[in-house]
Amino acid sequence: MGRTSDAKEKILTAAHSLIEQRGYSALGVAEICKAAGVPKGSFYYFFESKEALALAVIDEHWAEERREWTRILGGDAEPLQRMRQLFEATQASQLAGKESCGAISGCLFGNLSLEMSNQTEAVRERLQEIFEAQAEMVGKVIAEAQARGEVAVTDTRAAAQSVVAQLEGQVLFAKLYNNTSQLGSLWANCLALLGAQVPAQV
Amino acid sequence: MGRTSDAKEKILTAAHSLIEQRGYSALGVAEICKAAGVPKGSFYYFFESKEALALAVIDEHWAEERREWTRILGGDAEPLQRMRQLFEATQASQLAGKESCGAISGCLFGNLSLEMSNQTEAVRERLQEIFEAQAEMVGKVIAEAQARGEVAVTDTRAAAQSVVAQLEGQVLFAKLYNNTSQLGSLWANCLALLGAQVPAQV
Repeated sequence: MGRTSDAKEKILTAAHSLIEQRGYSALGVAEICKAAGVPKGSFYYFFESKEALALAVIDEHWAEERREWTRILGGDAEPLQRMRQLFEATQASQLAGKESCGAISGCLFGNLSLEMSNQTEAVRERLQEIFEAQAEMVGKVIAEAQARGEVAVTDTRAAAQSVVAQLEGQVLFAKLYNNTSQLGSLWANCLALLGAQVPAQV
Repeated sequence: MGRTSDAKEKILTAAHSLIEQRGYSALGVAEICKAAGVPKGSFYYFFESKEALALAVIDEHWAEERREWTRILGGDAEPLQRMRQLFEATQASQLAGKESCGAISGCLFGNLSLEMSNQTEAVRERLQEIFEAQAEMVGKVIAEAQARGEVAVTDTRAAAQSVVAQLEGQVLFAKLYNNTSQLGSLWANCLALLGAQVPAQV
């Protein structure tokens, strides 16, 4: 049993890394198994298909990222400061990725949205759920800031989606230019999108 | 000669359409030639490689889009109104794509940035040049608005990149949700990012 679950984890880890580096379409099951160091026969013991593996990689990555977003956005800091912490954590995480493998991998969900959303409905739906969850988490923080009179938005959900869109767009440029300094403008842009003043307590 | 250039154009058109639908990595030369209705042997007469074809598709698409952007952003309307026209044209073009093939294909350059930028340097460089040209075109309009006292930004180039990032992020969501109404917020978000008032002449 120990070896079995180990093989599944190895496949997931290898697939996650390969999808981040080269996308989903270009990968084959044989290559994933080779990178994972497991026999190809064991792949279909754990996963029905390459698509099922992609969904498992997405779920695992979101479970991890959601924990981080929940920790930051549900924290004790002032609402807009929590937004700033989220952007700083995103920049730090992209920089760490660059330092470990040479290239900024960007956002797995954004990458797969553009690569796969017109190809598999199951992946499209999962990615929609994730971005909806992100917008909801950000929207709650914006609503808190709104209640404190710190932002000038009326539709907190639409504002949250615009903030997440700005994040995805800037992460796209960070990946394209392989440069995380692109992400330094996220905080100021978020304040502008929300019609916010910089909070007094910095 | 007539037939020759016709075959090249057929390959480009088929490749453009297939890349928009399914991305670059998943495509093979044989499939592209089959869709184009040309013999596979003729492919390498026109293109050294699949990468060379991708660059040609990118160049052709940008030549067309740049004409449209130049027409709009270099037009006679007030500067911020030209920005609005650009967003409306983007929304209309994505909607037309959806009506003709059922799915929003998004931005070819954004799609390929996330799919290919870590895989081929030639494509990465070309896409960087295109997004730099876009930021420059938008930056000029922002500078005009700045000279008229209509926006509150100091770094027009950074502001232009944020506006283009917002556009790419919202087009990503339009593609993921297969819904162009996501793009309706671009104008208001652009004004917010620029610290602008809605111009008097609408």
